[in-house]
Amino acid sequence: MSRLEKVTTGMGEECGVFGAYDMDGGDVAPSIYYGLFALQHRGQESCGIAVTDTYGKRKISSKKGLGHVDDVFDEESLEELKGNLGVGHVRYSTAGGTRVENAQPLVINYVKGTLAIAHNGNLVNAIPLRRELEYTGAIFQTTIDSEVIAYHIARERLNVSKAEDAVKNAMKKIKGAYALVVSSPRKLIGARDPLGLKPLCIGKQGHVYFLASESCAIAAVGAEFVRDVLPGEVVSFTKHGIDSDMSMAIPGEQQARCIFEYIYFARTDSTIDGVNVYHSRITAGKALAESYPVEADLVVGVPDSGLVAAKGYSEQSGIPYGMAFHKNSYVGRTFIKPKQSDRESSVKIKLNVISEVVKGKRIVMVDDSIVRGTTCENIIKMLKKAGATEVHVRISSPPFLYPCYFGTDVPSNEQLIAHSHTTEQIRQMIGADTLGYMEVEKLKDMVGDLSFCDACFTGKYPMPVPGEDISHAFE
Amino acid sequence: MSRLEKVTTGMGEECGVFGAYDMDGGDVAPSIYYGLFALQHRGQESCGIAVTDTYGKRKISSKKGLGHVDDVFDEESLEELKGNLGVGHVRYSTAGGTRVENAQPLVINYVKGTLAIAHNGNLVNAIPLRRELEYTGAIFQTTIDSEVIAYHIARERLNVSKAEDAVKNAMKKIKGAYALVVSSPRKLIGARDPLGLKPLCIGKQGHVYFLASESCAIAAVGAEFVRDVLPGEVVSFTKHGIDSDMSMAIPGEQQARCIFEYIYFARTDSTIDGVNVYHSRITAGKALAESYPVEADLVVGVPDSGLVAAKGYSEQSGIPYGMAFHKNSYVGRTFIKPKQSDRESSVKIKLNVISEVVKGKRIVMVDDSIVRGTTCENIIKMLKKAGATEVHVRISSPPFLYPCYFGTDVPSNEQLIAHSHTTEQIRQMIGADTLGYMEVEKLKDMVGDLSFCDACFTGKYPMPVPGEDISHAFE
Amino acid sequence: MSRLEKVTTGMGEECGVFGAYDMDGGDVAPSIYYGLFALQHRGQESCGIAVTDTYGKRKISSKKGLGHVDDVFDEESLEELKGNLGVGHVRYSTAGGTRVENAQPLVINYVKGTLAIAHNGNLVNAIPLRRELEYTGAIFQTTIDSEVIAYHIARERLNVSKAEDAVKNAMKKIKGAYALVVSSPRKLIGARDPLGLKPLCIGKQGHVYFLASESCAIAAVGAEFVRDVLPGEVVSFTKHGIDSDMSMAIPGEQQARCIFEYIYFARTDSTIDGVNVYHSRITAGKALAESYPVEADLVVGVPDSGLVAAKGYSEQSGIPYGMAFHKNSYVGRTFIKPKQSDRESSVKIKLNVISEVVKGKRIVMVDDSIVRGTTCENIIKMLKKAGATEVHVRISSPPFLYPCYFGTDVPSNEQLIAHSHTTEQIRQMIGADTLGYMEVEKLKDMVGDLSFCDACFTGKYPMPVPGEDISHAFE
Amino acid sequence: MSRLEKVTTGMGEECGVFGAYDMDGGDVAPSIYYGLFALQHRGQESCGIAVTDTYGKRKISSKKGLGHVDDVFDEESLEELKGNLGVGHVRYSTAGGTRVENAQPLVINYVKGTLAIAHNGNLVNAIPLRRELEYTGAIFQTTIDSEVIAYHIARERLNVSKAEDAVKNAMKKIKGAYALVVSSPRKLIGARDPLGLKPLCIGKQGHVYFLASESCAIAAVGAEFVRDVLPGEVVSFTKHGIDSDMSMAIPGEQQARCIFEYIYFARTDSTIDGVNVYHSRITAGKALAESYPVEADLVVGVPDSGLVAAKGYSEQSGIPYGMAFHKNSYVGRTFIKPKQSDRESSVKIKLNVISEVVKGKRIVMVDDSIVRGTTCENIIKMLKKAGATEVHVRISSPPFLYPCYFGTDVPSNEQLIAHSHTTEQIRQMIGADTLGYMEVEKLKDMVGDLSFCDACFTGKYPMPVPGEDISHAFE
Repeated sequence: MSRLEKVTTGMGEECGVFGAYDMDGGDVAPSIYYGLFALQHRGQESCGIAVTDTYGKRKISSKKGLGHVDDVFDEESLEELKGNLGVGHVRYSTAGGTRVENAQPLVINYVKGTLAIAHNGNLVNAIPLRRELEYTGAIFQTTIDSEVIAYHIARERLNVSKAEDAVKNAMKKIKGAYALVVSSPRKLIGARDPLGLKPLCIGKQGHVYFLASESCAIAAVGAEFVRDVLPGEVVSFTKHGIDSDMSMAIPGEQQARCIFEYIYFARTDSTIDGVNVYHSRITAGKALAESYPVEADLVVGVPDSGLVAAKGYSEQSGIPYGMAFHKNSYVGRTFIKPKQSDRESSVKIKLNVISEVVKGKRIVMVDDSIVRGTTCENIIKMLKKAGATEVHVRISSPPFLYPCYFGTDVPSNEQLIAHSHTTEQIRQMIGADTLGYMEVEKLKDMVGDLSFCDACFTGKYPMPVPGEDISHAFE
Repeated sequence: MSRLEKVTTGMGEECGVFGAYDMDGGDVAPSIYYGLFALQHRGQESCGIAVTDTYGKRKISSKKGLGHVDDVFDEESLEELKGNLGVGHVRYSTAGGTRVENAQPLVINYVKGTLAIAHNGNLVNAIPLRRELEYTGAIFQTTIDSEVIAYHIARERLNVSKAEDAVKNAMKKIKGAYALVVSSPRKLIGARDPLGLKPLCIGKQGHVYFLASESCAIAAVGAEFVRDVLPGEVVSFTKHGIDSDMSMAIPGEQQARCIFEYIYFARTDSTIDGVNVYHSRITAGKALAESYPVEADLVVGVPDSGLVAAKGYSEQSGIPYGMAFHKNSYVGRTFIKPKQSDRESSVKIKLNVISEVVKGKRIVMVDDSIVRGTTCENIIKMLKKAGATEVHVRISSPPFLYPCYFGTDVPSNEQLIAHSHTTEQIRQMIGADTLGYMEVEKLKDMVGDLSFCDACFTGKYPMPVPGEDISHAFE
Repeated sequence: MSRLEKVTTGMGEECGVFGAYDMDGGDVAPSIYYGLFALQHRGQESCGIAVTDTYGKRKISSKKGLGHVDDVFDEESLEELKGNLGVGHVRYSTAGGTRVENAQPLVINYVKGTLAIAHNGNLVNAIPLRRELEYTGAIFQTTIDSEVIAYHIARERLNVSKAEDAVKNAMKKIKGAYALVVSSPRKLIGARDPLGLKPLCIGKQGHVYFLASESCAIAAVGAEFVRDVLPGEVVSFTKHGIDSDMSMAIPGEQQARCIFEYIYFARTDSTIDGVNVYHSRITAGKALAESYPVEADLVVGVPDSGLVAAKGYSEQSGIPYGMAFHKNSYVGRTFIKPKQSDRESSVKIKLNVISEVVKGKRIVMVDDSIVRGTTCENIIKMLKKAGATEVHVRISSPPFLYPCYFGTDVPSNEQLIAHSHTTEQIRQMIGADTLGYMEVEKLKDMVGDLSFCDACFTGKYPMPVPGEDISHAFE
Repeated sequence: MSRLEKVTTGMGEECGVFGAYDMDGGDVAPSIYYGLFALQHRGQESCGIAVTDTYGKRKISSKKGLGHVDDVFDEESLEELKGNLGVGHVRYSTAGGTRVENAQPLVINYVKGTLAIAHNGNLVNAIPLRRELEYTGAIFQTTIDSEVIAYHIARERLNVSKAEDAVKNAMKKIKGAYALVVSSPRKLIGARDPLGLKPLCIGKQGHVYFLASESCAIAAVGAEFVRDVLPGEVVSFTKHGIDSDMSMAIPGEQQARCIFEYIYFARTDSTIDGVNVYHSRITAGKALAESYPVEADLVVGVPDSGLVAAKGYSEQSGIPYGMAFHKNSYVGRTFIKPKQSDRESSVKIKLNVISEVVKGKRIVMVDDSIVRGTTCENIIKMLKKAGATEVHVRISSPPFLYPCYFGTDVPSNEQLIAHSHTTEQIRQMIGADTLGYMEVEKLKDMVGDLSFCDACFTGKYPMPVPGEDISHAFE
């Protein structure tokens, strides 16, 4: 699925988290702003920044809002966010339920002062944990898991002397996927779930430390990449330096990174757990070329997410790589969709075929997924109208068949064409000459030695999951 | 102090609360919207509406925002607020600390479902209560007392079978001023502090019940005024009718209604605890005429809050009542203040003297209070420039001398001219020919037999209060 | 008609014009901003300011927009309007056809540099003049008469050496009502039509000269009122002082000031052509008391426009004056109107009766006009419901019977209740006990010796007018 | 210059024009909206749509505003633009002087009714023409050439019976570059300057005819490309069909298409005068490879405008094509620029190098131009930091050396690095290993047999031009 299709299907992305701590006392809000820009692809519904200082009143200033980073923040509001310690968040968009109350970071006052929490991921035991908390008199003001996490940190904090220990103890209770960035009055804390489902990494520039969902955000603020936070690790940054606690870690072969980060979520210029995303997608393209070779004249990718895999297909197959599409970069959120029943028009406005390139040619068209198939069908029509003699579709992920409980907002089964149709049926429906999906067995080539989670393709979940979809349980 | 001066001094007003429950299942958001309009004078910083239904999913929909009621709500957003049970709130503006997070109603999920709370008033024991809650693991996301109240209701709810009993039990712990409007999944609940510091009343139109801070809001929605909620009373509206619990009530002579509601806060067309506000202000004007008679040609009021007392002065003294001022009703929040050092200009833009009316006349000018004295001084200058030969100032409240702990945001002592100057000194500073403040002893005439709180004038608080100002304790 | 009713009927107001010239070179945009605030009651659709300097590049900076003065301008935009010579405009709202293109001042480049024109009034020969201009190749970009005036000034300017002479020569061609404020590269020019239909006056503060539709705007900027621009006069302000040209003036008894300025348009604190508006309305009230005496207990005015005439009625009749209504000052432009068929609700939200005042009393209710009668009917109902035993309605203007061709946007005949009903029929329809309209013969008492235009009541136009309504001829 | 650099240098783009006429009477505003979306790359400052109908009142409805197409129009405003005949415009952004008054289409009333004009290009004799018009009493309300054109059409229209003849006669007076789309009450008219400096083409879908700056906009609305409007041609569409007038045409070899359309302005999926833009850029890349061969491992393009030429270089040289950059598509207009002196940061946020791709490689980096050189320098630094061992820069246009008088807003000489430095000096300044600019002699290969204008590189203007820059003459 190209990002193009996503807009219409409401397929959700992840969230992005970012944290910064300047040991020299400089303001970190500008860096967080730029860091969130680099993570904007992980969530466009809402965003927020919360900063505090480690030397003065340690009061938290925060601003959150619906929309993109540059919708929510302007120079004046950045100016007002004073402090050398802070966290930021971008949240993905869901079909309904857009509420500013659910924007992160979550900022709380608790027994030890203030806390700001930014969270990427989904807990699988959020419902029983909430219930349990409610039975001790807890009240909830949002529908996000972060509030459950905050309560646990607050309660654990009563028994331990360090905030990072409260985070660690809270991790013993919460189950699921999480990359956490937390600012306590004097510390920046990062934590990653033991399975490593969600990514988190560390950067450094001079006396400033950074935490980010992806390394591209470290690069965007001009910092050096230090290393990934390890699955199960709790890292804390204070004026005394970095501390690490690995007591929640599990053996590497039990870890389960989300393979979809490599296929689709992450930016091509990010490197996660040592595996470069660009490289990973080139590999996927090559695997497709091996699995589904075809005689053709040109390999083209559907912008933007199919481009790299297309390059890989081209490299492996020797078939030249070409640019068949012009994507209109001005089609944004406030674009008014055509009313005509013909959905083709909507695609046309966003994407146009360069006839010169495809005329008279046999085309291999690579994309990262097929959701409902209509966008794919329309693009194939456009290619053929422009003179392509054949269109061979290659998809760089296996078909989605199972729900994700860890934060990937996969469309419901009814919307997923792969759920009720065979590949051959889909091929006919979209009008492709041939169609090949990435083979599940070859996913491992994308990430080298890393162990990963491919439950959305296989149904093999890395931990017990509830029987039904919990993604909107509290709304 | 006319509302004119307030804008520049940041003297706070109360908040306003409103609730509605349609037993026939009709949507109540439009009524709440119109009710809040009628209460807008009680708070302009932020507002909000939260609705639920008593028959279906009992999910709460809410919208809150910074600004006036017509800034925050439009037809589309009202349309989306579906439900036959709801509460609304308008919040007063303070100099700083404007945060959308603090907007009400507070909407929470707790052990028994959802709860929306709108609160007017201030608790005097909020700090120890918060601290106590934090030591049991509570987290706070706002700086408003309502969150403390919510926690207590949630915890009490674990032990009782009815939401109104949880409210009552919470009232045993919270001390201070409160008018509460609460929607639980199936009920609308209203509660008023035992002293009756803050007003609350009941209205009815067909099968719809209303709760409102002032009766003017009942009239605005076209309903009949039923009665005031009594000090210490908890009322609840369900599909079975109204229930009342008076177990928290105290003897009438111990009650302590805020006298400032009658002097300034409330709308002239409201009636609180049986005393009509218009009548009360006429009485104040008459009292001033008795206390400080003077030979003069015309009595004028400073718009809008001095007009009724001026009428009373005129009636008692026999000196004709006149309209000396044109107030520019277009000067709103986004008005750019003049930069000139001369503060007079700012007054001039908002208020102009009709020379024709005052030329060659001895004027009695009535206003409701003097804060810093500069506005008063400027108005007197304008009157004299327009030809008034004498200006005798009469103020319908005694001088502020003590802080209020119950929600009235009186300016700090340094800003209050009365705090460090005698009446004669003030008279000279503002350039009045004579100056008379309402006598504390005559305040009782304004409210008939009701017992009331005049601590801001006398320092006699109706309950133990903390030693220092707590109004911004959590910010 | 109270302003209340206006909102719903779309009865238009005038426009307001303002000009300023600082001989010392100071920026005038802030003064124009405050001047327009004081004229905001003359027009709320759009506004604009255009400034230039008389010493430097003489380039015009301007900003125009839809909305109130404080919607269109903020500190930043005022800051950018640099120049010591400028004009401003507020435009009235019409039902449809709101176009920013029609906002004034009109800013043009022509043979002698730049010109900014602000115009209040309507030409009766705009159509033939436009046609004539078009036949010489003119193009029109707006539907406002100011463009026709601008063309004539530009063409006349080719033949004369002074801009004010071009204005004067243009006045020989244009027929109708106009108060003009024009900035040429080095001069501020004011002109008023020979009949004096529209007001215009001069103010001065130090080295700064002002032109304004009403004297209240002169007062608002802290300047001294100098004198009215005379009907037919052209005044010009240069660095050498003021010049006046009276060659277009006509004898005083032929002049025809718009009587509606005194009845309704102008602010009570303005004085036009020597007659104070407050005084004029007091006189109207007195005339009503003479024409239609009645036994009653209280005289009340409908806020805000009926208040002064009510005072006059009270003074003449000896019946006490009372405040029967609370007007909600927060009901603004973005207010969502109730959907119920019962129009009463809309009135209720804006206006509430203070029962205490009217209970058991016979009321004389004074307003300035009746358009459709529904608002009046609803207010009477409210008074009776609140306990008034009788309601005697007095209207301080005669019934509208004829269209205005000079800029007053009187509702069409179908909307005017007076057009098709007798006074007795109207009395029954609105539910009044008695009803009396201002007698046409007594209008002259309102304005002393001044000759005036009362064509909307009598059909006696002060100049030949076209046979049909021309108010929207170019739209 | 990549579009990236443009943002900071303020280098202007062209404008885009669009027109539509539905012979069956359907509304054309939606099509114009989508057409303008496809032309958005030609101008982002302001846009507008003006529609009329050919059967009813023939009144023009229009909406213009500052910002992108989706900022200015929403569903409601599109809905209100009723009519089967209309024109649209997108305007480029300049550093200052952003005025909504200058937005197009220009909508006028003139002797024959209404006219809406959208214009792309610059007249070289606009100043004398304006002056001449002013001396006959013309007034100007904007600083755009379109107003001069409108006056000429209006005046010519007095002497001819058809609007298209008035356009043709106006063309005899105006000199310079223009693609015009005009709606007269019953016709859609298109015209192109005799040199063909600006593009314009015709499309058709059923009974709807279209005019557009580029063929990509024809494709976006789902229409078929019919043909280009020829240089010097006037085409008109009425209910009777198409008419063409070629009397202003000149011999093909004298024509002078703007070569920069092919190098940079136009979208790669457009075809102008028979030459496909994608193909043209591939050719440019090949020419660079021939002129400046180098031993290297990878050819990369700077997104987005250098990508195609990079592909061409790769094809010709046999060096593999690679994707070295991730461009952040969320960095938009309201992005807050970093305050650090180091300009590198700003580039970093917009563009990031994929180290995996460039590490250890000798890189050929292709871009379309160099303006100040700072962006280029920063990108080279990033490549080297990421491990590139050599960076060979190839620029697909010759150095800018002369001002453009036809509408291309080339930065002033001081800003242009090529103006005061040799290629070798530039190479050193930007830190490239080698640097090669497109050779002027090879430009012709890009456009086949077409004659073109390359004056900005050679100073050989296709018509006499004024001695100084006229681009902001009227501001």
